[in-house]
Amino acid sequence: MAVIYDRVALIGLGLIASSMFWAMKRAGVAGEVVGYARSVETRDTARRIGLCDVVCDSAAEAVAGADLVVLCVPVGAMDRVAREIAPALKPGAVLSDVGSVKRAVIEAVGPYVPEDVHFIAAHPLAGTEQSGPEAGFAELFDNRWCLLTPEGADPGETARLRRFWEALGSKVDEMDPDHHDLVLAVTSHTPHLIAYTMVGVADDLGRVTDSEVVNFSAAGFRDFTRIAASDPTMWRDVFLTNKDATLEILGRFTEELFALQRAIRQGDGEHLHAYFTRTRAIRRGIIEAGQDTDVPNFGRNPEKS
Amino acid sequence: MAVIYDRVALIGLGLIASSMFWAMKRAGVAGEVVGYARSVETRDTARRIGLCDVVCDSAAEAVAGADLVVLCVPVGAMDRVAREIAPALKPGAVLSDVGSVKRAVIEAVGPYVPEDVHFIAAHPLAGTEQSGPEAGFAELFDNRWCLLTPEGADPGETARLRRFWEALGSKVDEMDPDHHDLVLAVTSHTPHLIAYTMVGVADDLGRVTDSEVVNFSAAGFRDFTRIAASDPTMWRDVFLTNKDATLEILGRFTEELFALQRAIRQGDGEHLHAYFTRTRAIRRGIIEAGQDTDVPNFGRNPEKS
Repeated sequence: MAVIYDRVALIGLGLIASSMFWAMKRAGVAGEVVGYARSVETRDTARRIGLCDVVCDSAAEAVAGADLVVLCVPVGAMDRVAREIAPALKPGAVLSDVGSVKRAVIEAVGPYVPEDVHFIAAHPLAGTEQSGPEAGFAELFDNRWCLLTPEGADPGETARLRRFWEALGSKVDEMDPDHHDLVLAVTSHTPHLIAYTMVGVADDLGRVTDSEVVNFSAAGFRDFTRIAASDPTMWRDVFLTNKDATLEILGRFTEELFALQRAIRQGDGEHLHAYFTRTRAIRRGIIEAGQDTDVPNFGRNPEKS
Repeated sequence: MAVIYDRVALIGLGLIASSMFWAMKRAGVAGEVVGYARSVETRDTARRIGLCDVVCDSAAEAVAGADLVVLCVPVGAMDRVAREIAPALKPGAVLSDVGSVKRAVIEAVGPYVPEDVHFIAAHPLAGTEQSGPEAGFAELFDNRWCLLTPEGADPGETARLRRFWEALGSKVDEMDPDHHDLVLAVTSHTPHLIAYTMVGVADDLGRVTDSEVVNFSAAGFRDFTRIAASDPTMWRDVFLTNKDATLEILGRFTEELFALQRAIRQGDGEHLHAYFTRTRAIRRGIIEAGQDTDVPNFGRNPEKS
């Protein structure tokens, strides 16, 4: 595949940035990839495992001369990083990010972007419960969506960034940032908050021991713990910066939950059965859309052949 | 391995019963396995795929002469099935079940159990989101727990049933039925209700289309849909029969959720970060206990080698 950006700078070297690096190498779409992380330990690890062609000791040094700069830091750190790198950005460069919330990133980064730099916010919908520079792998974005929220950015540069993400394995769509934040509140942010809550309740319940919770988790709970093991800083920032949409969806959630709770209390089996039948259809849609596997139990147990 | 029961009868031929059959064959612990399902279609499927050595057209016929009878029907059907088979049970036989709730099963089945039959309720904590006679596989119980709630049953027969489940791959523990129901309300029943609710909210939200929910599900939501795709009849019965414990845990859940919701509204990042850090530890415990894999993303994406 042809090179799309001669020089790419990754600011922040966690799960997403490290996966981007391996996916760029697999696709051959970047001439040189330069990386920076705030922590010395992360930079040392990156150098040890060959993550990035060059690891720099300052963000400004990393972005100098880069044709594409991608901010891969928690949403709450975008403001600080943007301020730090802005003076060093190359004229004509594309500045992007991978944050889970888009309106807040646009508000945090936008004011620092020089006139001659193209800012196109983006969000690859991919991840695992692991974090850090050693968590990345080239296939993370394969067949996953990456949402761009260009808001009037140069169409040619938007199309180029789209080609870049497609080369990394993604399917790409464009969206208004506010709509993005609402969609993600439904498909990601509220589910995470609920999973964190359920795990917290289990941990806190005196009458059921932690070892019972751990041993007897296979019947549903462990899927919540996977979600609830995600990076705490990233998720704190998501909820603080996508507050309105998350609170709106939480309101709908508790409303529905109370209706089901009442059905349980009143012994209304028909209501429960109808509700549980409806939710099955959504699952079929997700499997048909290739966004999950229907291997039983996620392939945790081998199938009868 | 030596035969533990000469003749085993499985009443109901869904995911659990079919997995038990393949696991019994793998272990060689049953002389002959006889099966019965109420639906003609299920019996035909069972005969076609070789599920059970003999498939009978009545439950009474299936249990005649069986040394172990296992009720593998939804909890709400236990009462009817127990009444139907009781007169046909062989003196000295063991009668057991695989229901997700134990106190309600004991109350439903107990009154019909003849004096000379050993009733030992059981619950294998294993499953997938699939159901039906073709969903089973021999490895389903490997390294998963099976909880027995013998409540004063014959210790020799309890030990024998324990050996049987161990031969099927399970780890076995004994528990008081009420405590079982509380533990499962935490680790299984409430998580399922919450997952169903979240999927229902997403399905019902006019401003976000179903195709957006489906396409952009990879960031958390799809794990909920897997849980929410489980058998509706089974789950209706679970909530109707484990009402008190589920409502208690739901109360705790909403209390915690409201505290996190308030932290979001007030912008209390410290509270959120501390909460999300605590829940990570539980996840580590589950992986250390061998109850889940730490392969990123459940191995949905191949790892970088």
